[in-house]
Amino acid sequence: MKAAVWHARKDVRIEEIAEPSSPEPGWVKIEVAAVGLCGTDLHEYAHGPIFTCVDQPHPLTGHQGPVVMGHEFSGKVVELGEGVDNVTLGDRVASMGGMCCGECHYCQQGLLHLCLKGAMFGFHINGAFTRYINVPATVLFPLPNSVTDVVGAMVEPYAVGLHAVRQAMVRQGDTVVVLGAGPIGLTVLQSALAEGADKVFVLELSTHRQELAMQLGAAAVIDPGEVDPVEEIKRLTDGLGADVAIECIGHKDTAPLAVSLIKKAGCVVLAGMFTDASTINFLDVAVEEKRIVGSFGYLMEFPEMIQMFSEGKIDPKPLHSKTIALDDLVTEGFEALLSKDNTNIKIIIEL
Amino acid sequence: MKAAVWHARKDVRIEEIAEPSSPEPGWVKIEVAAVGLCGTDLHEYAHGPIFTCVDQPHPLTGHQGPVVMGHEFSGKVVELGEGVDNVTLGDRVASMGGMCCGECHYCQQGLLHLCLKGAMFGFHINGAFTRYINVPATVLFPLPNSVTDVVGAMVEPYAVGLHAVRQAMVRQGDTVVVLGAGPIGLTVLQSALAEGADKVFVLELSTHRQELAMQLGAAAVIDPGEVDPVEEIKRLTDGLGADVAIECIGHKDTAPLAVSLIKKAGCVVLAGMFTDASTINFLDVAVEEKRIVGSFGYLMEFPEMIQMFSEGKIDPKPLHSKTIALDDLVTEGFEALLSKDNTNIKIIIEL
Ligand SMILES: [Zn+2]
Ligand SMILES: [Zn+2]
Ligand SMILES: [Zn+2]
Ligand SMILES: [Zn+2]
Repeated sequence: MKAAVWHARKDVRIEEIAEPSSPEPGWVKIEVAAVGLCGTDLHEYAHGPIFTCVDQPHPLTGHQGPVVMGHEFSGKVVELGEGVDNVTLGDRVASMGGMCCGECHYCQQGLLHLCLKGAMFGFHINGAFTRYINVPATVLFPLPNSVTDVVGAMVEPYAVGLHAVRQAMVRQGDTVVVLGAGPIGLTVLQSALAEGADKVFVLELSTHRQELAMQLGAAAVIDPGEVDPVEEIKRLTDGLGADVAIECIGHKDTAPLAVSLIKKAGCVVLAGMFTDASTINFLDVAVEEKRIVGSFGYLMEFPEMIQMFSEGKIDPKPLHSKTIALDDLVTEGFEALLSKDNTNIKIIIEL
Repeated sequence: MKAAVWHARKDVRIEEIAEPSSPEPGWVKIEVAAVGLCGTDLHEYAHGPIFTCVDQPHPLTGHQGPVVMGHEFSGKVVELGEGVDNVTLGDRVASMGGMCCGECHYCQQGLLHLCLKGAMFGFHINGAFTRYINVPATVLFPLPNSVTDVVGAMVEPYAVGLHAVRQAMVRQGDTVVVLGAGPIGLTVLQSALAEGADKVFVLELSTHRQELAMQLGAAAVIDPGEVDPVEEIKRLTDGLGADVAIECIGHKDTAPLAVSLIKKAGCVVLAGMFTDASTINFLDVAVEEKRIVGSFGYLMEFPEMIQMFSEGKIDPKPLHSKTIALDDLVTEGFEALLSKDNTNIKIIIEL
């Protein structure tokens, strides 16, 4: 079967690989329907190896070396391993983006997303940019008929956004600032509104993404190239600052900026992937009792998001910018995203 | 009456001032019994003006210029303003360290300690290093007979420590690291144990303070001059890191250090007063879902601490290093603390 395999930085090949064998006990074989392309994939393509296990096998999966990418996917159950009872043959399902060991300190506390040996599909074990994939049954959730395959492939990134909002403990009536209107920032915007935020302000430089944010319900977009965001948020919040700021960029300067955008006892959620160290005077955090909280992945937000899609509480379609074929993953996918044309938010590959 | 008045940096004078007039409605006149000397006082003496209103009147109290210092005190109610009903003439009381406006956004939410116009006694209005002081009745809490005047003057700094522990949401069985065994760090140590922490590790350079920490129940003291604290805490916590780290120093390098001492989903409380900016890569905070929370002052921890003293749950006496007279405040108080002789923790002035 054809698959998109990461070999090295800027070297992802569409090539033939063997179909996976019958699933082991507790595992399920999925015929992939749709897969989303993610910022993490792009980073691995452009700057990797970041997650891919090149030098040693992954502690949970044992996988090492070239790997089929793809971790945001939907598909159909085509074969069941022994003892699987949460899905049945023919079920349409969405899959979480990774798996956990089930045994470590964090797994035992129910913090599966913080597993010490956590493995992501597409990096630490073969992923979904291909026809068939075997995954543990526990990562699968059935899709109702109202949720299409393409939308099913978008459950994963939306669960990331909802989890970030939950980390902030956003309450009804809160004012939220989202830093960055990329694929994560926009799911955060929609999730914050769905969770009862009164107003969501979005900081974004790109005109196209500013427009998308307004279309998705932002109360205002702020262009940090044109106005001082701290002054502007103060102006929009009776001089107090926002209740919550959610950093979805991962830039060293936007983390401290987020802290300066919130009121006393407010909360900053860090959902971006930071590469460089930030400079921040913690005096404000201390004396104003601000909170800074990390966000990584998701837990029960995954099935909750299927439910929200199904009930129409969140409409993911505006984020789906185009559908491409597996053969075009590099040119129409990775290279298109790298071109700095900001109109692509979520590219879906249909198998 | 004699008072210790801050005039300028390194210029605190013991001089005669007028006795306060009869208290206004809602206020109470206190005959001061005992007052603690605090790190904040020391900073104002050595590096001020930091809090003292030199250039403009305080927005709540209207006070400007030289001010009687002292904000950690106990005393006796000697005169009641109109409408006061929470204390009566002759009551022995402890006083909170400051007052709030009661009207701002934060006061209306019950976050009195974050008041936009909050005023500290001894900085923003005359304090307690003198015979009589007028304060709003709402800051006063009666002392049971089992709590002496000197212990009553220590309710305030202990409430600061308990509040820091509460900000961390320390749970039964948690492992806590306290950074710094100064006056705040030691109250945090005792509060964490009283709140059910299983083990409290203390990072401290001074031998005397290390010994005091052990005496007060620390599971171990770690000398960062001798061992790598990150490695040592890992070793003491099955390789995971602590549940909670509470920064009580206020140094730019110990805030990021605290973050590296905790496990995934763990909590850092910043209770120190930072002057310089820290350098920190927020990637760890993001992907390990760590929390960083500020702590400033206290709320209901103040009367709770009176209760804890009364019930013997916390013994503050080991922190009381000496009692001095008002006349000796500069030489035996400020200058003794500045001498780098680390044996002084809490100096009490008896009036
Ligand atoms: Zn992803
Ligand atoms: Zn695990
Ligand atoms: Zn104090
Ligand atoms: Zn107020």
